[in-house]
Amino acid sequence: MKNPDPGTRQGLHMDRASSSTVARLSSYLRLLRELEAHNIETISSSHLAERTAVTPAQVRKDLSSFGNFGRRGLGYNVRRLRQEIGEILGLTRIWRVGLVGAGNLGHALFSYEGFGRQGFPIEAVFDADPRKVGTAWNGMQVQSFEEFPRVARRSPFEIIILAVPGEVAQQVVDTVVASGTRGILNFAPAKLQVPSGVAVREVDLSIAMESLSFALSR
Amino acid sequence: MKNPDPGTRQGLHMDRASSSTVARLSSYLRLLRELEAHNIETISSSHLAERTAVTPAQVRKDLSSFGNFGRRGLGYNVRRLRQEIGEILGLTRIWRVGLVGAGNLGHALFSYEGFGRQGFPIEAVFDADPRKVGTAWNGMQVQSFEEFPRVARRSPFEIIILAVPGEVAQQVVDTVVASGTRGILNFAPAKLQVPSGVAVREVDLSIAMESLSFALSR
Repeated sequence: MKNPDPGTRQGLHMDRASSSTVARLSSYLRLLRELEAHNIETISSSHLAERTAVTPAQVRKDLSSFGNFGRRGLGYNVRRLRQEIGEILGLTRIWRVGLVGAGNLGHALFSYEGFGRQGFPIEAVFDADPRKVGTAWNGMQVQSFEEFPRVARRSPFEIIILAVPGEVAQQVVDTVVASGTRGILNFAPAKLQVPSGVAVREVDLSIAMESLSFALSR
Repeated sequence: MKNPDPGTRQGLHMDRASSSTVARLSSYLRLLRELEAHNIETISSSHLAERTAVTPAQVRKDLSSFGNFGRRGLGYNVRRLRQEIGEILGLTRIWRVGLVGAGNLGHALFSYEGFGRQGFPIEAVFDADPRKVGTAWNGMQVQSFEEFPRVARRSPFEIIILAVPGEVAQQVVDTVVASGTRGILNFAPAKLQVPSGVAVREVDLSIAMESLSFALSR
């Protein structure tokens, strides 16, 4: 990752950035992409704040290390800010991603175009069920999970999307972590134990639902 | 919703609560449920902060209106705090939920046990594809989306889970909103236009992936 100004970059304190900071960066990034698609070249921090439902003070704090892209009265250069946030989020490269679990959820995730578009194309699919192994998904054969260590030895997976039943999730994670994977996107209803140095992100669909029921209860 | 002390309740300013406040309440709630399952009766705000990766000051601010449940040196009563947060989030009732879209994602969401357990059981499934209409999912027949207005007139859906292709999403939403639905959980890759008074929550799977790539880029 290029780092033209280590001094200001450190200002973000990214090593201990909270998950909410990362979520806000994701949200700025989405807006910047949309603006870029409409050929809009600059945006003020107050407009960025308004469009992402964040306070202007928080936006300025989050982007303080991008000072060289924003000038008082001129706002931020949309394209450069988008590139810079993309680099911070690790989106300027292609990640090696595997999917474990070829059930309905696995298939839905496999078909989800957003992953491939954003640098997370699924390169292999594994399942333990012999009835699923060998079936072709869009030209890609589902492989037996028994083969995982061998396949990963040849070309390791950086990220595994986990779409297996909760009761086998830990066992699957132990195998993929032993094979060198350091990132898990977990859809299984299970709290996973992983060694330090391995990152797990849970996708809990109920949280979005709770936010909805909260809004409807007002 | 019972409201023993309107003065302190207003302290939360819930009508303009940000989505991050609601996300933190969801996160406290998950921890409290876990503690309750382990028969733990009280928790300090600092411990609650540590376990949910929130600053202690933020926890105290979020829970300031629950002062009657927390006493200096004694901490919060787990069960009462869990009940109170559940009420704030609208989780003490059953919501009428319909699913539109009977593809792989729709089926995965239908099978997701978390919704039913938390008061969001899916009561009906709709699809526009004649090959899917009439098929039975766990004893529930997929209905034609053409029937939606008629079915909703008989018993309106408060929340619709949207799992349709992006290009038909807006059209589907227009129909469900016209039928009285005020909450949309959107899995379709589309920005939806809705009248004021209708709440939409997007589930963007890429955001969790970006958080992972950020962590792995360190």
